[in-house]
Amino acid sequence: MADASSLDALVDALRRLPGVGVKSASRMAFHLLQHDREGAQLLARALQQAAGNVRHCERCNTFTEAPVCNVCLDTRRDAGKLCVVETPADQAALERTGAFRGYYFVLMGKLSPLDGIGPKDIGLQKLFDRALDGTVSEVILATNFTAEGEATAHVIGEALRQRGLNVTRLARGVPAGSELEYVDLGTIAHALVDRR
Amino acid sequence: MADASSLDALVDALRRLPGVGVKSASRMAFHLLQHDREGAQLLARALQQAAGNVRHCERCNTFTEAPVCNVCLDTRRDAGKLCVVETPADQAALERTGAFRGYYFVLMGKLSPLDGIGPKDIGLQKLFDRALDGTVSEVILATNFTAEGEATAHVIGEALRQRGLNVTRLARGVPAGSELEYVDLGTIAHALVDRR
Ligand SMILES: [Zn+2]
Ligand SMILES: [Zn+2]
Repeated sequence: MADASSLDALVDALRRLPGVGVKSASRMAFHLLQHDREGAQLLARALQQAAGNVRHCERCNTFTEAPVCNVCLDTRRDAGKLCVVETPADQAALERTGAFRGYYFVLMGKLSPLDGIGPKDIGLQKLFDRALDGTVSEVILATNFTAEGEATAHVIGEALRQRGLNVTRLARGVPAGSELEYVDLGTIAHALVDRR
Repeated sequence: MADASSLDALVDALRRLPGVGVKSASRMAFHLLQHDREGAQLLARALQQAAGNVRHCERCNTFTEAPVCNVCLDTRRDAGKLCVVETPADQAALERTGAFRGYYFVLMGKLSPLDGIGPKDIGLQKLFDRALDGTVSEVILATNFTAEGEATAHVIGEALRQRGLNVTRLARGVPAGSELEYVDLGTIAHALVDRR
């Protein structure tokens, strides 16, 4: 729209965001340039900061700006329990229940054979190294109760059981087909107690 | 999510985009940091470039990087006809029909009394100066056929008629309640021929 090449470049760049088509991108660009240039500059700086500073925790793989994240540094937690989740948002949902006081491993994804995402793409070796470091006695699989989340739990569970670990899964109190991030706290807490 | 303050800052900044809530913003931030850091850097640069370089055309008010935009610099157009639109996207829709060869004025908004947006907020004085520069013989009002677009057309039409200009409106071939950007080219072309 209009004849400003930097405006076209902005629309193209906004389209790289998930769920943003050309109409939404144009609307966003118009809004920022017409009504919120301060927001545009702020977003630019936030993107550069985050892209430059955010890395993966050496122990649990979640996003952090330090080598090891605050949860992993918290020594009051039960070192024998390791909970495996797909994303930081899922971990946050579990933390909000207050029902789990062990450590986490954040996959940052899930197995998805149809999309060509296999064990190497989601870095399962890092999980195996963490789970087999000698301190963990139980691995709780808290991947989502979707087809892909279940498949991911199955693959990880089989691999860790073969290596002699005690592996449990959140109880199916969580409604099938749903994503943890959107489930109410009580349901998650109950599923945690009933893990099998 | 996670314990990275620059990640929280990124989520907050993304929420300034229109139509983006906290869930979408978190999903966007996760996608950029996990799968597309190049896209994050690219978007940051595009935002800075656009916020720094894009200004308003001195003649038609649309976005441009030069003092005057390419459409206004095109001397083969009919200087007697001035078409008033709400946004650059609406102007682009009219251009695609090929049915209008005059000049434009882009309001970059519309009157919206309920939102407190009055004549001063959308810079009507700049339009009046342009329409009364002595070259324009007909002003074609091509604001959207929504309640706000109609009110905007009414206010502008009254003001320009009082100043002695010939004012027309796109024919109501355009379905009421719709926005030009989404109307098919044939309908717009027909409405342009039948303007009243
Ligand atoms: Zn960690
Ligand atoms: Zn212009």
